[in-house]
Amino acid sequence: MIGLSSYAGVMESLINSAEEQQPSSPLDKSWSNKQESSKNQKPGVGGFVLVHAGAGYHSESKAKEYKHVCKRACQRAVDRLKAGALAVEAVAAALVELEDSPFTNAGMGSNLNLSGQIECDASIMDGKSLHYGAVGAISGIKNPVLVANRLLNEAQKGKLSAGRIPPCFLVGRGAHDWAVSHGIPPCPSEKMATKFSLSAYKRNKRKMELAEKMDTGHNQTKKRRQSSENENGSGCLDTVGAVVVDLEGNVAAAVSSGGLAMKHPGRVGQAAHYGCGCWAENACNMNTYSTAVSTSGSPFLASEDRVLGGVIVLRCCRCVEAQPSQNIQGILVEFLWSHTTESMCVGYMSAQDSKAKTHISRLPPGTVPGQSLAIEGGVCRLMSVAE
Amino acid sequence: MIGLSSYAGVMESLINSAEEQQPSSPLDKSWSNKQESSKNQKPGVGGFVLVHAGAGYHSESKAKEYKHVCKRACQRAVDRLKAGALAVEAVAAALVELEDSPFTNAGMGSNLNLSGQIECDASIMDGKSLHYGAVGAISGIKNPVLVANRLLNEAQKGKLSAGRIPPCFLVGRGAHDWAVSHGIPPCPSEKMATKFSLSAYKRNKRKMELAEKMDTGHNQTKKRRQSSENENGSGCLDTVGAVVVDLEGNVAAAVSSGGLAMKHPGRVGQAAHYGCGCWAENACNMNTYSTAVSTSGSPFLASEDRVLGGVIVLRCCRCVEAQPSQNIQGILVEFLWSHTTESMCVGYMSAQDSKAKTHISRLPPGTVPGQSLAIEGGVCRLMSVAE
Repeated sequence: MIGLSSYAGVMESLINSAEEQQPSSPLDKSWSNKQESSKNQKPGVGGFVLVHAGAGYHSESKAKEYKHVCKRACQRAVDRLKAGALAVEAVAAALVELEDSPFTNAGMGSNLNLSGQIECDASIMDGKSLHYGAVGAISGIKNPVLVANRLLNEAQKGKLSAGRIPPCFLVGRGAHDWAVSHGIPPCPSEKMATKFSLSAYKRNKRKMELAEKMDTGHNQTKKRRQSSENENGSGCLDTVGAVVVDLEGNVAAAVSSGGLAMKHPGRVGQAAHYGCGCWAENACNMNTYSTAVSTSGSPFLASEDRVLGGVIVLRCCRCVEAQPSQNIQGILVEFLWSHTTESMCVGYMSAQDSKAKTHISRLPPGTVPGQSLAIEGGVCRLMSVAE
Repeated sequence: MIGLSSYAGVMESLINSAEEQQPSSPLDKSWSNKQESSKNQKPGVGGFVLVHAGAGYHSESKAKEYKHVCKRACQRAVDRLKAGALAVEAVAAALVELEDSPFTNAGMGSNLNLSGQIECDASIMDGKSLHYGAVGAISGIKNPVLVANRLLNEAQKGKLSAGRIPPCFLVGRGAHDWAVSHGIPPCPSEKMATKFSLSAYKRNKRKMELAEKMDTGHNQTKKRRQSSENENGSGCLDTVGAVVVDLEGNVAAAVSSGGLAMKHPGRVGQAAHYGCGCWAENACNMNTYSTAVSTSGSPFLASEDRVLGGVIVLRCCRCVEAQPSQNIQGILVEFLWSHTTESMCVGYMSAQDSKAKTHISRLPPGTVPGQSLAIEGGVCRLMSVAE
């Protein structure tokens, strides 16, 4: 089998795909960064990965770190794909790298909750089996996505003893204990906090105390509710995620988050919610496209005046190119990222690329987060020759 | 304001509504129980409630108890509606009654988990605000739905101090502590278990030990996975739920469940999942129908060979009847229940009825649970005279 890949400039079909994703709100559209063609084509097992390290605000000084972690995450996924792994294994590998970075709000370095603890949400979905695994408000585990992935794998084995249905969503202490009993080592909470997350916690704590002190003597509830509308803004929404397609055309998606800073203990966000944090679905009789999505942002937006979030999407379909000597079968991959936050850091890579491309996507100058939308993306062709 | 209500035989529009709900699988259809007209029409504040006490298997001996609790739940909701409550308050009141019954798998008398503890899931949604509240794997609280409802109410008040987003989904210990700190009294776990749930736990424990002992020396994983396929069947899926419309046309839905017997601690089922356990959405510019749905059954059905579940649905729209002297405005309510389990116990009542109607719906004779589908329902007209 010979693999080839190219980021072609087929923006037309990408635009179609983007317009389906786009909310019907009167948000601005911004199209840019038409992706360049990759010349580095080698034989081998193929696939494609797109990751993001958070939709929020990335200062120029932080940008380098975020790009680095996206690059490493892509490489991890591609390494797995080259070793013959399916999409779901590769997407988990990418997430581990994103969680391990102390700069992302996932796994290591996650936001601390109201009690000063780290509680993480993560989920993963396999587009081939449609199986799903998720953990919510889990503490003391370095890589929450590995617990979600293990839940997915265990569920695929079928029923437990006495016909019991295996769990696919575990939370809190029960999730931690299940993970440890399945060989995933516990990690002391103090090792998961970073200097940055601890100082942010102290700063937030002081801010809360100050806000509550200022309310004393006034109409407390009303004041409390109105104060500091924008302080918990885009900076806190840096969930990480990845979407993958392997050369068999299987898709998978995953998401991981430390949740909101100063959240109530036990709070579970959209990263763990079935159908909210991620989705993956292979092509089938009724649908010629395989699709994988991973989201980031406020979970239930009904009451929010500013919708802050981001999404990465890939969809793909089989294509055939008849050549004089060979029957070249392939997969056309369209991918995009979109966000209403100030910025979003993404990376993407085909198994045929020597290294990942990374990019800090920003809203157009002069536009307002939550009121504008940036959409960018590209197209990649994964080719294999039927032997 | 004068209220009138009638269960009219407008089955045509009901059938339309049912066909939209019906999965595209080759399941049998069963239509019956065309609802009779209610003559008991009094003036007053109006509304309509539909509840169910579980989709599973109801023996004739149990049927009476289940009908009783459905009747009481409907009465509770109607009492609230008559007192001027909105749909969301009324639906919570119905759920409290369903949870308090030791015969339902929700609140009091819930299934015990692997550790012999009760952990409950519940969620509620307000179709007017689209706000949602949910708890997962919560212990030591008599009425999980009241915690979900309180989360919804608190979220409607807006941001917390220092701009923090209030939680809408809390799990485990954090959910319990939040409830207690918001004035919901804790309930000792031993008071929530019943003689029946404790003896079922002991029976299940013995069954599990036996199944695992039989595997020793054999190919353990394979045996374990295959044994007792059907033992955890329809009997355990008895989630309770309710859907309500008030005379303003607001809809609300709620669901509560003790989850699967012998589940792993921390397991959260569909009752707590956003968009899975319940949904409610008022009519708006883009949609002339208000809709409320509450479901029961296996959460993630991808791998299940037998899809066991149940659903209650109501949808309604405004209607006007021009009379010689008065302009009568009203709401046409279509409602239905459907299940693939052996049986489902439902109750329904308009605020104008003197008592609730209850019914044990059963699959047609000779059909197989999980392969057949029963759908029944009716229509109710809520009328009010513009003064």
